[in-house]
Amino acid sequence: MKRREFAASLVAAGATVALPPGARAFTSRAAPLRVNGARLNAHLAALAEFGKNPQGGVSRVAYTDADKESRPYIMQLMREAKLDVSVDAAGNMIGRRAGTDASLRPILFGSHTDSVPEGGMYDGDVGSMGAIEVAQSLAEQNVTTRHPIAVTIWQNEEGGDRGSHAATAVLTPSEFTTVSRSGKTIREGIAFLGGDPDHLERTRLTKGSVAAYLELHIEQGGTLEKEKLDIGVVEGIVGLRQWIITIEGFQNHAGTTAMGERHDALLSAARFIEAVNRVVTSEPGRQVGTVGRVTALPGTVNVIAGKVECTLDLRDLDAKKIDALFAKIEAESKKIGAMNGTTFTFAPYASNVPAPTAPAIRAMVAAAATELGLTHKTMPSGAGHDAQELAQICPVGMIFIPSIGGISHAPKEYSRPADITNGANVLLNTLLKLDAGP
Amino acid sequence: MKRREFAASLVAAGATVALPPGARAFTSRAAPLRVNGARLNAHLAALAEFGKNPQGGVSRVAYTDADKESRPYIMQLMREAKLDVSVDAAGNMIGRRAGTDASLRPILFGSHTDSVPEGGMYDGDVGSMGAIEVAQSLAEQNVTTRHPIAVTIWQNEEGGDRGSHAATAVLTPSEFTTVSRSGKTIREGIAFLGGDPDHLERTRLTKGSVAAYLELHIEQGGTLEKEKLDIGVVEGIVGLRQWIITIEGFQNHAGTTAMGERHDALLSAARFIEAVNRVVTSEPGRQVGTVGRVTALPGTVNVIAGKVECTLDLRDLDAKKIDALFAKIEAESKKIGAMNGTTFTFAPYASNVPAPTAPAIRAMVAAAATELGLTHKTMPSGAGHDAQELAQICPVGMIFIPSIGGISHAPKEYSRPADITNGANVLLNTLLKLDAGP
Repeated sequence: MKRREFAASLVAAGATVALPPGARAFTSRAAPLRVNGARLNAHLAALAEFGKNPQGGVSRVAYTDADKESRPYIMQLMREAKLDVSVDAAGNMIGRRAGTDASLRPILFGSHTDSVPEGGMYDGDVGSMGAIEVAQSLAEQNVTTRHPIAVTIWQNEEGGDRGSHAATAVLTPSEFTTVSRSGKTIREGIAFLGGDPDHLERTRLTKGSVAAYLELHIEQGGTLEKEKLDIGVVEGIVGLRQWIITIEGFQNHAGTTAMGERHDALLSAARFIEAVNRVVTSEPGRQVGTVGRVTALPGTVNVIAGKVECTLDLRDLDAKKIDALFAKIEAESKKIGAMNGTTFTFAPYASNVPAPTAPAIRAMVAAAATELGLTHKTMPSGAGHDAQELAQICPVGMIFIPSIGGISHAPKEYSRPADITNGANVLLNTLLKLDAGP
Repeated sequence: MKRREFAASLVAAGATVALPPGARAFTSRAAPLRVNGARLNAHLAALAEFGKNPQGGVSRVAYTDADKESRPYIMQLMREAKLDVSVDAAGNMIGRRAGTDASLRPILFGSHTDSVPEGGMYDGDVGSMGAIEVAQSLAEQNVTTRHPIAVTIWQNEEGGDRGSHAATAVLTPSEFTTVSRSGKTIREGIAFLGGDPDHLERTRLTKGSVAAYLELHIEQGGTLEKEKLDIGVVEGIVGLRQWIITIEGFQNHAGTTAMGERHDALLSAARFIEAVNRVVTSEPGRQVGTVGRVTALPGTVNVIAGKVECTLDLRDLDAKKIDALFAKIEAESKKIGAMNGTTFTFAPYASNVPAPTAPAIRAMVAAAATELGLTHKTMPSGAGHDAQELAQICPVGMIFIPSIGGISHAPKEYSRPADITNGANVLLNTLLKLDAGP
């Protein structure tokens, strides 16, 4: 459908079309443009073949072969959406298209296509395929934006927003040498994906150089489904602090060492895990705390563990609350260590400050949803997202769609095709509203 | 020193020598014979080169190259001790010597030379090198026993008394296919060491075919050192039951899943580990309970664990007490699972019934220690030993020496050279006392 036909169809459908001065065909008062939902869901299913798990979902861990092998397919879709495709120095896939006003800064929108090990096929993929679909819909409906636009598929979001961070910030030496889940360092991973880790400055997105960033994502929690809502208008992304904790006890024989003479590092780890849960749930609020990984050494049925390594992940929209929770947990660990002569050491692993979204963009997301006939609510994001990194250099907005059962980072992660299409439609119309601005 | 010279030296030293009828040179009233302690400790140090850890101790896990490579050295020592060396069908190293009375059944004595991963250089090795030293001392002092004797170095004690069990019992098909720490099945391990797993019956030690079995071992606990005693007269080996426990929860995102909506398998594992400790320590006695291994899946900092596998090890001299403790722990696991919607499954892994030592042999061990001027006490063995397996076919006795700091199954495991020599001297003289009997 050409643009004139489309405008005509809007009139035929009884919509009020007020063509503004200039090249744009749509304002917020126009009947909303829509994506091709069938195509979007088909692309999502095709992408899920890369790194597919036997039990469903995908294991497309950043910098692994599954991750790398998926990228030619993704870039092909970008080209079909009439985007100029490149890999930036940080290894992100970027698809650009010029706008009608070369003086305007670009609007970016996208997500990521890497996954956790044994993850789902929606986390990141919905926003990535949704962004490409938005670009393709604009192209085939002959809508040219005023702003330049760019679809951005950030690498290694699950390993700590590595691609979006490398595209927007100056990396510290230790950030380059951090070892990712793939076994590769971040530097090696960037190079593996075709980036240029020694020249990140060549494509860096500096503060103020981008008009806005939009990201569509699955909620990864159960709120929207439980409240039977279509769209989440994200008010901000919770801050996060992670640690790797080492507990030192004393390795000894499980048969000969009396209970009272043990320095059992795994018993201390168990008390610690229970304490994390107790501290985090002991006050009202949406804060969460998780120990997700634990390794006991030597790790044998008949040997008392002499050493345990485990992780801690604390999140809240309020950074001070995270700090206060950690202080309580650290105090608990001292008590636990004193109980059986074990010691706790906390090594910071990753952190993110809470990132609020731009109030003006939140309003555009809400308005786009309303115009599409979709119900919505404002909510925080409990998960980290690339939008946090972008929030350091430009205003950002995020759109959530329901995750069935609140399941995420698991093969059973699922979002309904209609919800995915709804999300892409909201992304498209939020983009057009943003495009009307500076 | 020849036998006559030795007898003369005893007279010279003022000892009462009462030569009995027959070939034996010594009775319990003779001044005790002694081993060459310096040689014994040198052999122990040389053995520790096989599978040596960088941080001390050894990793000489059964059926690994380190285990296999140590065996020619051990068999060479046996030959130097004038033993006829063979590998039995179960892969055990046997060093035989005839006695003066071919109608008598053999007396066996020995231990094992495999270790846990990152274990010490004393567990098993002291008893093995001690047994060879006893044989060598007898040979060079021209003492011929009435009974045939055999030094027995059992394979894979740490993996569940596999060699001594295969030598004395009829293996079930599942015992053959059990996978050991080396990655090899027991069948493969036996073959790897030069045994003949298809013809175990050819060298099987049947009930009543052995006069007695003696084993010298480090205590692996801290009782003897703490009480400043030289020798432990083992009253029995505790029984053991082990399980592998699977906890099923629900894998989900650590940021988006509210605390109240989690089915965190690792939180349940933590509560379980704490419950094991609480149940085991809630009543008096020497019972012990240990969770030594835990694996959380997927095992990532930002994912709630959907599944955890851990182990449980319960031991006591009373099998009924073990069963009662397990019943309590199982009941606790049901409560823990109900707290957050997780489920526990217990798969039996290994078990051993408690094995009392023969009261007559206990008395001989105590008498031998006294005659050597060594202090001693009667005590249980918290660790399992090959003597448990032998207890199914013959009377057994065990001799403990102090473990400094009670440390075992760890690189810092240590026993003093003088204590090692004491232990071998008690072994030698207990053997001679046994030899006076039927």
